[in-house]
Amino acid sequence: MLQLSAETIRDQLRLVFESWKMESHHIETCVLQMVEADLMGIDSHGIGMLPTYADNFSRGALVANPTVRTVNDLGAICLLDADHGMGHVAATQGMELAIEKASQHGLGAVSVRNSNHFGAAGVYSNMARKRGYIGICTTGTTQRSVVPTFGKEPRFSTNPIAFAAPGNTQPNGFSLDMATSTVAVGKLRIAARAEKPMPEGWVVNTSGDAETDPEAALAATPKRLTPLGGTRTLGSHKGYGLAVMVDILSSVLSGSFIGGYNLRTGEREKYINVGHFFLALDPRGFDDDDQPFEDRLDDLIDMLRATPAADPDQPVLIPGDPEQAAYEERTRNGIPVTDKLAAEVKAVAATSGVPFLFDR
Amino acid sequence: MLQLSAETIRDQLRLVFESWKMESHHIETCVLQMVEADLMGIDSHGIGMLPTYADNFSRGALVANPTVRTVNDLGAICLLDADHGMGHVAATQGMELAIEKASQHGLGAVSVRNSNHFGAAGVYSNMARKRGYIGICTTGTTQRSVVPTFGKEPRFSTNPIAFAAPGNTQPNGFSLDMATSTVAVGKLRIAARAEKPMPEGWVVNTSGDAETDPEAALAATPKRLTPLGGTRTLGSHKGYGLAVMVDILSSVLSGSFIGGYNLRTGEREKYINVGHFFLALDPRGFDDDDQPFEDRLDDLIDMLRATPAADPDQPVLIPGDPEQAAYEERTRNGIPVTDKLAAEVKAVAATSGVPFLFDR
Repeated sequence: MLQLSAETIRDQLRLVFESWKMESHHIETCVLQMVEADLMGIDSHGIGMLPTYADNFSRGALVANPTVRTVNDLGAICLLDADHGMGHVAATQGMELAIEKASQHGLGAVSVRNSNHFGAAGVYSNMARKRGYIGICTTGTTQRSVVPTFGKEPRFSTNPIAFAAPGNTQPNGFSLDMATSTVAVGKLRIAARAEKPMPEGWVVNTSGDAETDPEAALAATPKRLTPLGGTRTLGSHKGYGLAVMVDILSSVLSGSFIGGYNLRTGEREKYINVGHFFLALDPRGFDDDDQPFEDRLDDLIDMLRATPAADPDQPVLIPGDPEQAAYEERTRNGIPVTDKLAAEVKAVAATSGVPFLFDR
Repeated sequence: MLQLSAETIRDQLRLVFESWKMESHHIETCVLQMVEADLMGIDSHGIGMLPTYADNFSRGALVANPTVRTVNDLGAICLLDADHGMGHVAATQGMELAIEKASQHGLGAVSVRNSNHFGAAGVYSNMARKRGYIGICTTGTTQRSVVPTFGKEPRFSTNPIAFAAPGNTQPNGFSLDMATSTVAVGKLRIAARAEKPMPEGWVVNTSGDAETDPEAALAATPKRLTPLGGTRTLGSHKGYGLAVMVDILSSVLSGSFIGGYNLRTGEREKYINVGHFFLALDPRGFDDDDQPFEDRLDDLIDMLRATPAADPDQPVLIPGDPEQAAYEERTRNGIPVTDKLAAEVKAVAATSGVPFLFDR
């Protein structure tokens, strides 16, 4: 396990993206948003995605220098075409535009089509929060790995919802960034490494029954995660409903593919065609008393933190707390990179013909 | 068990509301939206709420003839003050206004404060869907019954999310209306009647541990339901996060109470001060090809319905299917009313000095 500074990771990413002839302002956007995910502790969505991006680039599924295009711009809403570039580029532009519209109209929504994986959804909702807006971000995905309730084959993936709102006294305000699946694949890997069975409700097998062997779950193609709730008894139909809501906002609204599939042909295509959705809302438009929104949010957060804890050593948390703690710790001590990931990044560097910086 | 026509229930409601001297257009709004919930099969949110509303009215917590007031109206957003009237009145006006703003700006959001219980959230998201818009509705609640992850006391309630989108060939399009708790109290009553233990993950006891005895769970004051996910292992922190998101949109944004409590004093007050949130989005603003939004949504729904089923006798459902089936069946055969509810409505009729219509 390496422990690398954010700057080292940014430099490595810059070298690779420069070798792809990406424009420098696009490089800076991608580097910023990828390492933001790493600093927040979302290891699966930062530098950890570089090998996948490199693979997509090499097979022509990812355009290094996209021309992000405004397709429709009507009042408080806008549709952008990402031109198959890095998702971070169109996503950053999308949330910026949603915030701009919210500053004019109180509310703004931007839909993005023809995009790619954009990293962590919470990075974009937090852009709004840091500017004093409520931010919502959802995205479609590149694959099928989550099985609808009552089904036995996956139809969409972890379809995340990110929601952030600004507070005063809480360093992080409120920041929810959640997959609508019960767990992500990372949890299966942890169970496999620990050689422990998984709880019923994380994964199903080819019959749609509970799969508790993490090795079998990881070996399955495709993977078969459950929607949040895990089982029908514990409400998986709600997680399933939320996942479809995310695909309606992200993929149907923008005219993108669902889980990597063009539903009109039932096929994958050369381009992955991911869709995203961004919404910003100005809470100042609703202020009417001596207490601004941020103070009212603080009151809610304070009340939640004061909830009597089941275990005195584990107080009630606020969504965003773990990411904020990781951010502070990793800014001080660096970002952990597994030997396996370092080897993969080394291979990407070699293929790209650029120096590998992680062994210095 | 009685089986009553929608019209009989509407007539009974009209008589009671007339005795309260409600204005006729407010009566018609409430009667329409309450019986809509009954027709959709959401028994807990239609005529079943009348005894609670009557109790609130009799103790002065519910204003029969509110003056719903526009506090702020800025571009695509608006804040309404419900003046402590029936929630259905301000909620219907709120979603109407959100749709009107969406027709102008592509997108509209309305926040409501000083309101009361408004029935079923899905009734309002479906108002948008039926007019060709995507509709979102969330609401705060009147009590504390859901325990945050790692906590042992409730801090908010079932904080629902409703989301609806229009389709063509599906009679119901897409309509999700879900509590962010694992289950609602109704499920506990079913388990108690069946004299069966509940699954771990529905309810916790005063120590924050799983409670599986439905009688004990129902007898507890306050009740202690879990957020969606049920346990930390199965992702209850996500259900908790969604519930707080709902209270931020509904209650913090509008300046309302949280779960019936004024957070500045930590007390309940004479008025319950429920907050709601309504959003409408015009999908036509994003159309850019030969396939309109409704067709694209149909493609998604068709794909989901075609998911191979774990049990051939239980196909994969689309959120909204059970409500649509109930609507058709109850329009034909009437709405079931338990003897217990009928007796409660009879008592309300007696107190109100109006005829009781359910025994005719």
